Amino acid sequence: MKKHNFSAGPSILPQEVFEKSAQAILDFNGSGLSILEISHRSKDFVAVMEDARALVLELMGLTGKGYQALFLSGGASLEFIRVPYNLLTEGGKAAYLDTGTWASAAIKEAKKFGSTEVVASSKDQNYNYIPKGYTIPADADYFHCTSNNTIFGTQMNEFPETDVPLVCDMSSDIFSREIDFSKFGIIYAGAQKNMGPAGTALIVIKEELLGKTGRSIPSLLDYKQHIDKESMYNTPAVFPVYASYLTLKWLKEQGGVTAIEAKNNAKAALLYGEIDRNPLFKGTAQTEDRSKMNVCFLLENEAHTEQFDKLWKAAGISGLAGHRSVGGYRASIYNAMPIESVQVLVDVMKELERTVAP
Amino acid sequence: MKKHNFSAGPSILPQEVFEKSAQAILDFNGSGLSILEISHRSKDFVAVMEDARALVLELMGLTGKGYQALFLSGGASLEFIRVPYNLLTEGGKAAYLDTGTWASAAIKEAKKFGSTEVVASSKDQNYNYIPKGYTIPADADYFHCTSNNTIFGTQMNEFPETDVPLVCDMSSDIFSREIDFSKFGIIYAGAQKNMGPAGTALIVIKEELLGKTGRSIPSLLDYKQHIDKESMYNTPAVFPVYASYLTLKWLKEQGGVTAIEAKNNAKAALLYGEIDRNPLFKGTAQTEDRSKMNVCFLLENEAHTEQFDKLWKAAGISGLAGHRSVGGYRASIYNAMPIESVQVLVDVMKELERTVAP
Repeated sequence: MKKHNFSAGPSILPQEVFEKSAQAILDFNGSGLSILEISHRSKDFVAVMEDARALVLELMGLTGKGYQALFLSGGASLEFIRVPYNLLTEGGKAAYLDTGTWASAAIKEAKKFGSTEVVASSKDQNYNYIPKGYTIPADADYFHCTSNNTIFGTQMNEFPETDVPLVCDMSSDIFSREIDFSKFGIIYAGAQKNMGPAGTALIVIKEELLGKTGRSIPSLLDYKQHIDKESMYNTPAVFPVYASYLTLKWLKEQGGVTAIEAKNNAKAALLYGEIDRNPLFKGTAQTEDRSKMNVCFLLENEAHTEQFDKLWKAAGISGLAGHRSVGGYRASIYNAMPIESVQVLVDVMKELERTVAP
Repeated sequence: MKKHNFSAGPSILPQEVFEKSAQAILDFNGSGLSILEISHRSKDFVAVMEDARALVLELMGLTGKGYQALFLSGGASLEFIRVPYNLLTEGGKAAYLDTGTWASAAIKEAKKFGSTEVVASSKDQNYNYIPKGYTIPADADYFHCTSNNTIFGTQMNEFPETDVPLVCDMSSDIFSREIDFSKFGIIYAGAQKNMGPAGTALIVIKEELLGKTGRSIPSLLDYKQHIDKESMYNTPAVFPVYASYLTLKWLKEQGGVTAIEAKNNAKAALLYGEIDRNPLFKGTAQTEDRSKMNVCFLLENEAHTEQFDKLWKAAGISGLAGHRSVGGYRASIYNAMPIESVQVLVDVMKELERTVAP
């Protein structure tokens, strides 16, 4: 039976990425060698890395605008540390927006490096909205926000206008919608949601921001050293980078970010439409801040849990359980999720309505 | 034509690891999902991580001896930073042995954290030997060494007797030979030589050593936090960990470290035997410190380069070029390399001798 994978991450990728990457494990580019055993300095893999880095800038409209794209290991959580190391001056101040678990984790790490001001937080309502109307201190070295909150199903629709460098963790909605990426100083994202398998993170950096903190930065945490070594300061995660490259190529073939955004809008409209229409369900996030990537919802009546769970599992749906911080259900509908799978979920919700009707 | 992959890393892995991991990308454990799209918290992957961690301790004879095994992202180079963060006290001192490029890189990072004493170095002879007879200061927080030097083809046959905690970078010879692993406080290794594909690193830690520096450690750099979260503090590199797990299982099926050491000894004896016998070649490392993983050698007469290169390429050999620091040739003969492939290289060396004979 076909599976419909609504997992929050690692998560669904295009079927052709699975097929091509499995083939590359058996024989990479007709070399007679597996992609798992080739040198990262081999001509063919250097080309993959260079093409992937260029493709990132192209898809973001940042080519020739002073940005560098890196594929580094360690996960987006390592960027929680690299960002203050590279941007927070000794005695300086960082500003953060607290919109959920991962934003809080980033704040916790920044505090180990210096003064950290949380300009606003939605913790008071279990992060079910995005704070607005906050002020970013003009003397902050940077402002950090999280564009999409995987756990709480909220997403920033607008980014602040400010002269302070914008740093954004886009782990769970990167490449899902048109944004003016040139507004940002640093964008980073773990690959394992919209971009590839777990094991690599993408970092896009406006190069002119670097080298100003006066800190002694450990080499592997220094963005400048990674830029100088063209994202090969140390051995990159060859296979995760390759699978991410295949995913980026797929995205370009789909028509890029503009085209995928239209599809993502249609999927989100279909699912939120059903949540709002069906009397058995309710969404958890405030309507204007709803995420188009992670759709969190609850049963109005928990007595229907067993029956609903039985229905969606029987339909081949997996990964629908909500995060423990919110409960209920979370349907992650990333770029690679076809609208047909969203329709299967909507049909199951309708079926539940029919079977429990009085 | 069959390829014989002598690459220094990423490098050859067992053929069954390629086949099983390609299959898992198409369908993991009969789940109908790819291993690239499953949650790292899924039951099946948690089992992989737990089994892999247990298998590491079993293969090292460390089960029940107060050690923890972790599979972390970032590469062995990140351990150059994690080690001083976790073991070097404020105002304390670290001791390092300088045996090559990677040892030097580790020293460079440690110096950013505090006093670092290099107890001995073989830089004076382009790292072609392992220093001996050095003294480790009794007041050092730890002593760091590199068991095998991939670039220079040298290997430590003995480790010092000392009360100072021993930290060892075993990236390029881990699981290749019997060692009393319980002598070490921390052992670490990038996966991409003897253990798996690039993208994860193994860290084995004697737990009682942690928590003593008084430093404020960023979470992702704190071994204790990774131990508390059972190597899932953040999303692990799912696929690289899985492929490493398959490689460790293969090693156990081969008879474990004892059995593979016998095979490695036979391969090294075959190749060094030919280097010493064949008048056209000479080894670069001092005989008593020769590596059984990376065999570095030169042509006595560079005029034979073109002919030799033509011969080994025609025989299906790849990855034989030496590192620029040494020149010549480097045959990396890791665990997964069959002796038949080493014989192919030896036959080519003999063929060169026949063709250039007067």
